[in-house]
Amino acid sequence: MTYSIDLNCDMGESFGAYIIGQDEALMEYVSSVNVACGFHGGDPAVMRRTVELAVHRNIAIGAHPGYPDLQGFGRREMKVSPQEAYDMVLYQIGALSAFVHAAGARLHHVKPHGALYNAAAKDAALASAIARAVKDAGNDLVFVGLSGSVMISEASRLGLKTASEVFADRSYQDDGTLTPRSAPGAMIHDPEQAARQVLRMVQHKAVTSVSGKDIPVVAETVCIHGDGTAALSFARAIVHLLQQHHVGIKTT
Amino acid sequence: MTYSIDLNCDMGESFGAYIIGQDEALMEYVSSVNVACGFHGGDPAVMRRTVELAVHRNIAIGAHPGYPDLQGFGRREMKVSPQEAYDMVLYQIGALSAFVHAAGARLHHVKPHGALYNAAAKDAALASAIARAVKDAGNDLVFVGLSGSVMISEASRLGLKTASEVFADRSYQDDGTLTPRSAPGAMIHDPEQAARQVLRMVQHKAVTSVSGKDIPVVAETVCIHGDGTAALSFARAIVHLLQQHHVGIKTT
Amino acid sequence: MTYSIDLNCDMGESFGAYIIGQDEALMEYVSSVNVACGFHGGDPAVMRRTVELAVHRNIAIGAHPGYPDLQGFGRREMKVSPQEAYDMVLYQIGALSAFVHAAGARLHHVKPHGALYNAAAKDAALASAIARAVKDAGNDLVFVGLSGSVMISEASRLGLKTASEVFADRSYQDDGTLTPRSAPGAMIHDPEQAARQVLRMVQHKAVTSVSGKDIPVVAETVCIHGDGTAALSFARAIVHLLQQHHVGIKTT
Amino acid sequence: MTYSIDLNCDMGESFGAYIIGQDEALMEYVSSVNVACGFHGGDPAVMRRTVELAVHRNIAIGAHPGYPDLQGFGRREMKVSPQEAYDMVLYQIGALSAFVHAAGARLHHVKPHGALYNAAAKDAALASAIARAVKDAGNDLVFVGLSGSVMISEASRLGLKTASEVFADRSYQDDGTLTPRSAPGAMIHDPEQAARQVLRMVQHKAVTSVSGKDIPVVAETVCIHGDGTAALSFARAIVHLLQQHHVGIKTT
Repeated sequence: MTYSIDLNCDMGESFGAYIIGQDEALMEYVSSVNVACGFHGGDPAVMRRTVELAVHRNIAIGAHPGYPDLQGFGRREMKVSPQEAYDMVLYQIGALSAFVHAAGARLHHVKPHGALYNAAAKDAALASAIARAVKDAGNDLVFVGLSGSVMISEASRLGLKTASEVFADRSYQDDGTLTPRSAPGAMIHDPEQAARQVLRMVQHKAVTSVSGKDIPVVAETVCIHGDGTAALSFARAIVHLLQQHHVGIKTT
Repeated sequence: MTYSIDLNCDMGESFGAYIIGQDEALMEYVSSVNVACGFHGGDPAVMRRTVELAVHRNIAIGAHPGYPDLQGFGRREMKVSPQEAYDMVLYQIGALSAFVHAAGARLHHVKPHGALYNAAAKDAALASAIARAVKDAGNDLVFVGLSGSVMISEASRLGLKTASEVFADRSYQDDGTLTPRSAPGAMIHDPEQAARQVLRMVQHKAVTSVSGKDIPVVAETVCIHGDGTAALSFARAIVHLLQQHHVGIKTT
Repeated sequence: MTYSIDLNCDMGESFGAYIIGQDEALMEYVSSVNVACGFHGGDPAVMRRTVELAVHRNIAIGAHPGYPDLQGFGRREMKVSPQEAYDMVLYQIGALSAFVHAAGARLHHVKPHGALYNAAAKDAALASAIARAVKDAGNDLVFVGLSGSVMISEASRLGLKTASEVFADRSYQDDGTLTPRSAPGAMIHDPEQAARQVLRMVQHKAVTSVSGKDIPVVAETVCIHGDGTAALSFARAIVHLLQQHHVGIKTT
Repeated sequence: MTYSIDLNCDMGESFGAYIIGQDEALMEYVSSVNVACGFHGGDPAVMRRTVELAVHRNIAIGAHPGYPDLQGFGRREMKVSPQEAYDMVLYQIGALSAFVHAAGARLHHVKPHGALYNAAAKDAALASAIARAVKDAGNDLVFVGLSGSVMISEASRLGLKTASEVFADRSYQDDGTLTPRSAPGAMIHDPEQAARQVLRMVQHKAVTSVSGKDIPVVAETVCIHGDGTAALSFARAIVHLLQQHHVGIKTT
């Protein structure tokens, strides 16, 4: 039996004179990118260049909409209404779509960013509003959300294609949720361990929780973090192990 | 012989709790609207509502991209490179397009706003960059620019459809350019006079300059200003006079 | 026995071309103003003009710092750390102070705005961080906070002068807290009723709760809302009733 | 005879998650820092930390106000009125002052940033408006401006203390102005050559122009650029040469 998985990475988060991430180097390893749309990071010039790089490498391009909070990098939760979330997500999808279209490609997916992602994973009304924006943007976009969360169920209910996301460098709890970043053992610091976790998720549809239990998990796309000095080490370790086990790396 | 002309108005320039303009009332008089895209005015919620109003009335919808200067309402010139102009215009067109698409309509045209419009009317490289963004956005968008300026010639050179814009409430100089706002007599304050100027532009393809000369002018769309208490008076006077003379009011 | 109370009003919330509130008209009725500092509303030009108006009338000037969310007018809660709150409040106090100093006056107080005010009223760590910023700004600024909340107790603990704020047009619950805006009866729509509530708070140090109970309340400053068409009616009714009962209107 | 000169460096230009510059390392070499104030770079947290670092090292702290253009890093000229420039500069000075005061120090000087600096060096009305803001901010702030420009003369006319700035890594033309960046030979790439230019400016009050002429120049403070990988090399070379020749490095 053959397996395949999508590897995704957040990109295009530089802004003006400010450079963040190692976009070009990481594009060698991933099958899809989530491009910031100017609210939490990214600006029109960065979006154009990031899209052109991805098109050149034939990588699937997704929009990565976030809260309008550049200073907080979209990582501070804002209490917005579902309608406000719909509006801000649709705006950002549209903005990125124009660059993708201009580069001769098509937008493939949408993945909310940071605190918006976390809030939507817990709040069905918010998840539904975002999913509605993805649907109304047209073009059969795939909704990328936290595996097992209301993001996936709400998007499915609206008839959207979804991609259940798992994390290579985060540990899981017994109930299948991510260990909160504030708790000990939340992060996996060893690239090899992260790679093994990914392989197991793909081949066995399971993850070993922090308490050692075997937890079922749906893994359709794996998030590779793009910032930090270790980003490339993780990407290489994961790709290497997957290739050794003949797991294909491709977009959903 | 029958004549027709497009009447356009800038709309959707409110922002958050801040309300500006009389969008709904003015939509009764115009055949096309230019919707702010969040840079000089407008926000995602305002864009959605403005687009919905226009779709409801079957008015042609255009994007109205401006400089990223909300405090200056896009009226302060910024020295941006042609590439920066291209990027910011494409971004804004895309953002608005998403709302138009979600409302079941199609974006019709693009008209730069304020200081960006004025700069593009004088700078061929800037005009060309903006026209290129309009072209790359696809969908055969019409480029609305100052009649007789490089905006029209540069857009035409790229194969874009164009609409030559004239102004109802601005006076013209002997060389066919608008009298600068800082000069005396720049503004026409009488709605009836403005209406007669419009009618003459449509029927005789000419305007009387401030010195009394007869100046040829191409008038395909007339800008009706949307803010100020007199906006509705001007709109009514112009529409009334055009209807009296059986001039059709419709999009290019 | 004679009584006096401070009447405060939020002002200077216009931004660029966007006008909000009736600042000049309301200044006739209040003894202190809270001036927006450019984050949720206000811009440098609006701040300067508002300060000049207040100095001209010899009204006490306070800073009115809010979340960095112009689109949401500072009314959307943002999850910021106490340190982030400290930083954003100190920044805004400093910015306004410069205009007050340039106008030949001294900053008198600080009152957090909107969602930041509401969050600080419930979160002692946040209230303490804001109070620390007020203290570190120097000049013996008065901290204006919700009467009976941790804003007052935390500021007192740091040795700050405080002013306990009550509301003319909001109803109170049995536990002395404001009825949430989402609940029925939260708002008092009758200016005369609002005026009577204020008078009673001043003279009897009590308010009648929505269930009819007599609740003790510390009232040192009364918030008069500055936007909405009814703002002037409320201000006039309150001032009129207080004057009839010989209650002085002056800054704490 | 003994000489001394001030070495200044732009700092605190990071923003949120975005890091720029090598502030801490460069603080070892300079006698004064110009701290970004949140408009072209910097945010409240960055401002606080930068000020604390400078206070710790007992370096003179100045405000570094810029255009409200984070995306353009304040390097794109904006057509603002003198009044708008006054307002934005006073706002930024005030904001930074609060952090300096909270850290137990006093603001020492103000140096406009980027395109605002360049515009003010050529436009007396703009320079005068900025100087007026510096004056109205109080505390006898020193105005740092381009040596020989209207920045210095306008500030002097208002009675401000001034510091005439020269550049270590820029070449000069026969008329004493900087060679435009777009011209060949504008930048000096060799740290030793830059150091010799500085030494000569201090000891001989002259600079050798690109055509080889000896041009008189007033040098009271030297700008050391803070970004770029070579920043530290330049700082070290200049400090080393000045120390070898017993030139003191201290604030004006």
